[in-house]
Amino acid sequence: MSPTDREDLRQRVTKAVEAFLTGQRPRLDAISLDLIPAADALEAFLLDGGKRLRPAFAYWGWRGAGGEDNDAIVSAAAALEWLQASALIHDDVMDGSDTRRGRPAVHRQFASRHRAEGWQGSAEAFGTAAAILLGDLALIWADEMVNTSGLPAEALRRAQPVYDEMRTELMAGQYLDLLAQAVGGHSVERSMTVARYKSAKYTVERPLHFGAALAGAGPDIIRAYTAYGLPLGEAFQLRDDVLGVFGDPSVTGKPAGDDLREGKRTVLIAKALAAATSDQAAVVERHLGDPALSEAGVAELREVISSTGALAETERVIGELTGSALAALDVDGLDRTARDVLRELAVAATTRRG
Amino acid sequence: MSPTDREDLRQRVTKAVEAFLTGQRPRLDAISLDLIPAADALEAFLLDGGKRLRPAFAYWGWRGAGGEDNDAIVSAAAALEWLQASALIHDDVMDGSDTRRGRPAVHRQFASRHRAEGWQGSAEAFGTAAAILLGDLALIWADEMVNTSGLPAEALRRAQPVYDEMRTELMAGQYLDLLAQAVGGHSVERSMTVARYKSAKYTVERPLHFGAALAGAGPDIIRAYTAYGLPLGEAFQLRDDVLGVFGDPSVTGKPAGDDLREGKRTVLIAKALAAATSDQAAVVERHLGDPALSEAGVAELREVISSTGALAETERVIGELTGSALAALDVDGLDRTARDVLRELAVAATTRRG
Repeated sequence: MSPTDREDLRQRVTKAVEAFLTGQRPRLDAISLDLIPAADALEAFLLDGGKRLRPAFAYWGWRGAGGEDNDAIVSAAAALEWLQASALIHDDVMDGSDTRRGRPAVHRQFASRHRAEGWQGSAEAFGTAAAILLGDLALIWADEMVNTSGLPAEALRRAQPVYDEMRTELMAGQYLDLLAQAVGGHSVERSMTVARYKSAKYTVERPLHFGAALAGAGPDIIRAYTAYGLPLGEAFQLRDDVLGVFGDPSVTGKPAGDDLREGKRTVLIAKALAAATSDQAAVVERHLGDPALSEAGVAELREVISSTGALAETERVIGELTGSALAALDVDGLDRTARDVLRELAVAATTRRG
Repeated sequence: MSPTDREDLRQRVTKAVEAFLTGQRPRLDAISLDLIPAADALEAFLLDGGKRLRPAFAYWGWRGAGGEDNDAIVSAAAALEWLQASALIHDDVMDGSDTRRGRPAVHRQFASRHRAEGWQGSAEAFGTAAAILLGDLALIWADEMVNTSGLPAEALRRAQPVYDEMRTELMAGQYLDLLAQAVGGHSVERSMTVARYKSAKYTVERPLHFGAALAGAGPDIIRAYTAYGLPLGEAFQLRDDVLGVFGDPSVTGKPAGDDLREGKRTVLIAKALAAATSDQAAVVERHLGDPALSEAGVAELREVISSTGALAETERVIGELTGSALAALDVDGLDRTARDVLRELAVAATTRRG
């Protein structure tokens, strides 16, 4: 499995999402042509970006458990992109983010539309409301795409509990993240709980379990996926934290230091504070969560995170977690091709630049 | 079926929701005890109010098609309360409503909590974000409750397309409603489209179809439910419009004239404007959608709606629609007990005071 093969799955996932949307459009058109901009916004969001990481884990979770390649599993796996779209659209409303994947966030797009059309009432409120509804629709369409993927009813029935668990964990993780930012403080433990539920389980472990359950996997495979997925998911989240501070905007599609302006309570920040001198801690307290933080302020925070050793320590932990993830794949009964690809995915997910 | 029997079904629905929540709580607690207030807020929302109208139509849709009474169908029908909770929680965020069912709206509850705890950041933004996530969780739990209701897999598979259709129509209707308010104008036709999707199909026709599909109903029953459900749903929405302007706050649980302050583009308002003199139209233009509208302003608007004949005309249409709904129940193959109850439900839904 070369990067080209990974690109091939990515394209199949995109095509499956496209085909699903092609089926949904006539339904919306039959209700009202006023829904076209809503469908367009979802289409642009789903087709223009995304690493397709969750579908990849779901697909290889299936293959690892002995499932055959076919279009139905690609379609069921691709459905996770709708779930992710829902989470991101709502997340951007909650964070008041301006951009996503290098374009205006959905709520900003609809606020601009309101302004351009000279409509009545508040453009911001309209944008927020439209984004809430589009996120809801994406959440609904995730299930619908799973259920109409073409997989046998028995397979779908087996995977339903994992799917439900994944969605509840996602929302719980989001809520705990919100709460951590409101409560403040910089507990490494609290940050780890958020990372575990919002990211490790939702991004890696549960998609693998979802594919495995669809394929009717036994307990050994399920356990191996947990032992691989949880450390990898944590490493993935730590990479996200690093990119949120040090990432190149031309690759990440988000403004430099956006996480710092939002005041995200990441493990990286918690580690920096744990090792900071009182002067360094004062810099963090002053700048973190300042929506108007300048480039110079971002640079000062980066300096603190580097010089406290938090960056190097986080890089070390990412390497360590990736190592345990890879070791967990040495289990009997796991398909060999899937094992190779899951190894590559682990490295790609934790060394990415955007 | 007396009002007491309807009360009995309502209690069984409430018990089913309660039992489902009892099963969800340990899952949330295992993630973090910080989730307890979120579960509490959902519990209060679900258990303290609601007419349980959608579950009643789903249940009697099943019974009408020959399904036997059992706890599994009550549980599947009760799941629609989660869908409705999701729609209302998100709706209140979108409208910026202060109250729901006589209590503070969910986003207001969480904003108050933020303020009381002296947390960081904006209390309003926290309330909004928490309500978005709780609405998402309610939307997810709706499916989960259907899927774990105990109905046979084959029945669930049959009803899945109707369930998906219902949810997409709900979101489409909400979006069209939002758009109609932004675009302004007072088209009776546009108001009718919104009412049809947001209310007629979602509140009556689709719940009936959902119950019917679960029971494996034939096309005659499905058609009869459409012929009953659509006019009844429109009548139901018109009653809502009337209550939104003339309702008694102690019965509706919403402040008097709330729909007027929100600037809702209802059929009632469209009819009033269509028959208004230029002086009367000026009163509507001045007051409708004014968030600070006084009691006196509400009274002036009521006077216009009455004296243009729009109120009487709307009452006449409600009666007419209810009449066609009742006539549609004279179809072969419909269970007789169900027919009697559906008749009572039609009258109760269109003559209610709150």
